[in-house]
Amino acid sequence: MAAQRLDGRACATEVEADLLGRVSALKAQNIEPHLAVIIVGDDPASHVYVNSKIKTCARLGIRSTHISLPVSEKESTLKQHIQDLNNAEDVHGILVQSPLPNHMDEEAITDLIAPEKDVDGFHPQNLGRLVQGRTNGMLPCTPSGVLRMLRWANIDLEGKRAVVVGRSRIVGMPAALLLAARGADATVTVAHSRTQELEAVCKEADILVAAVGRPDMVKPSWVKPGAVVVDVGINRVDDATRERGWRLAGDVDPGVAEVASWLSPVPGGVGPMTIAMLMENTVRAAELVHDR
Amino acid sequence: MAAQRLDGRACATEVEADLLGRVSALKAQNIEPHLAVIIVGDDPASHVYVNSKIKTCARLGIRSTHISLPVSEKESTLKQHIQDLNNAEDVHGILVQSPLPNHMDEEAITDLIAPEKDVDGFHPQNLGRLVQGRTNGMLPCTPSGVLRMLRWANIDLEGKRAVVVGRSRIVGMPAALLLAARGADATVTVAHSRTQELEAVCKEADILVAAVGRPDMVKPSWVKPGAVVVDVGINRVDDATRERGWRLAGDVDPGVAEVASWLSPVPGGVGPMTIAMLMENTVRAAELVHDR
Repeated sequence: MAAQRLDGRACATEVEADLLGRVSALKAQNIEPHLAVIIVGDDPASHVYVNSKIKTCARLGIRSTHISLPVSEKESTLKQHIQDLNNAEDVHGILVQSPLPNHMDEEAITDLIAPEKDVDGFHPQNLGRLVQGRTNGMLPCTPSGVLRMLRWANIDLEGKRAVVVGRSRIVGMPAALLLAARGADATVTVAHSRTQELEAVCKEADILVAAVGRPDMVKPSWVKPGAVVVDVGINRVDDATRERGWRLAGDVDPGVAEVASWLSPVPGGVGPMTIAMLMENTVRAAELVHDR
Repeated sequence: MAAQRLDGRACATEVEADLLGRVSALKAQNIEPHLAVIIVGDDPASHVYVNSKIKTCARLGIRSTHISLPVSEKESTLKQHIQDLNNAEDVHGILVQSPLPNHMDEEAITDLIAPEKDVDGFHPQNLGRLVQGRTNGMLPCTPSGVLRMLRWANIDLEGKRAVVVGRSRIVGMPAALLLAARGADATVTVAHSRTQELEAVCKEADILVAAVGRPDMVKPSWVKPGAVVVDVGINRVDDATRERGWRLAGDVDPGVAEVASWLSPVPGGVGPMTIAMLMENTVRAAELVHDR
């Protein structure tokens, strides 16, 4: 058996087609959706991510502003930028690319972004809405991308056992909340570094979401035959056979494709969905301003 | 085997003893912790709860203000009261007793309370902090009372399987987040009305938290021998043998005491802890004002 491909790229393309129409509708009302992206420092991977977001904006007719600050920038300057963007009526979304330099307090920076412009969905007020089961606001992009992809593939979640491996504030925990929410209705288990018998816990899953950041961690023996496996990991691993010296690996061993019924590839799975959901949040933020 | 009693009353007494000292310390700095409680309508059980909270305030030297509005009150009047209390510098905690009359939007009311005065811990910003693993703010009272009681009894959570039955925004979901957070480190499953094979899921639990509101639902056969069982349910059931015609029943069948290693009684378990955590939030809110 070979798992069907949970094709994030194809799903993201459909999301984008829908967004193109919504952007046009906004522009017909003289609203131009506008995303501001701030990046601090020179991390090459972060710049790749930011450029990819900005290119997607361009493709969808979303205006973008790119603010690049040096790694030595004072935290107070970053905060002032955020305040200015919070106050700018023509800016609908604000994203501060992670990671920030060590001298900055990432949590405090997130707290500062106006919740209605928090297109990453990381502000505590937006995360708290997930606890309340209010899933109509700014949803964290990676978890909501996972859910969207599962729905797109017509995967039944109701009453099924879902296991999320990883308890991060930006992926694992919110993914668990979304899977357990009314309308998704999975029975959700959150596993993590302190979990005992992790392999056995994973094997309970009808839907397994791996979000730990350890290359190829989830082995075929960990997966119940026929399970749906979503690989959130994007890890760079050394690979001398590649010209650039590395390749991307997920958290899931590729051999899992022989056991699972569905498997999301890396790259081409959750990654494109994360960006698509960022774009959707930006458009929604612009629509909500219009509705006010 | 008979389960040990997870004695919320005894644990709450210890919490209160600690709070008495903290209240004295605040008063020595001319800060009088002050809780405002608003109740709308005539629901007898709600009035019992409110009176119990106000009595506990009195016992601890916490000032309380009791605002009682008629069931027909306009929502805008309730909102104005909240705004006034948000702005009142001498008020540290605001609690709006649930349930509200049908013509009021409970979620919108919760959103209106200043997060730093939200001693119920129901504001999305406070719930979102749990998703982030920030457990030093206003914690929802019942879930944090459950955790405190487990710690008080020296029950080891790390790596253990915890199952929370119920996914409400005020108990089930936040309890799951607290159990999974760093420092607690349980492997947590959230089960609910759509869960398939609920009995089997419950039986996986080393720690089982029942928070559904169905009297005696969790049967002895659902419980792994030696498990710790926390009963959050407070249900009124008809009982002709009682003079008042009813008695309180938990969500857990009393026969579970023959299987579990620990069991929290109803009443006298989670109930007293909920009030103790409300008092702790109020004192903490006053301390935080002082620290600012």
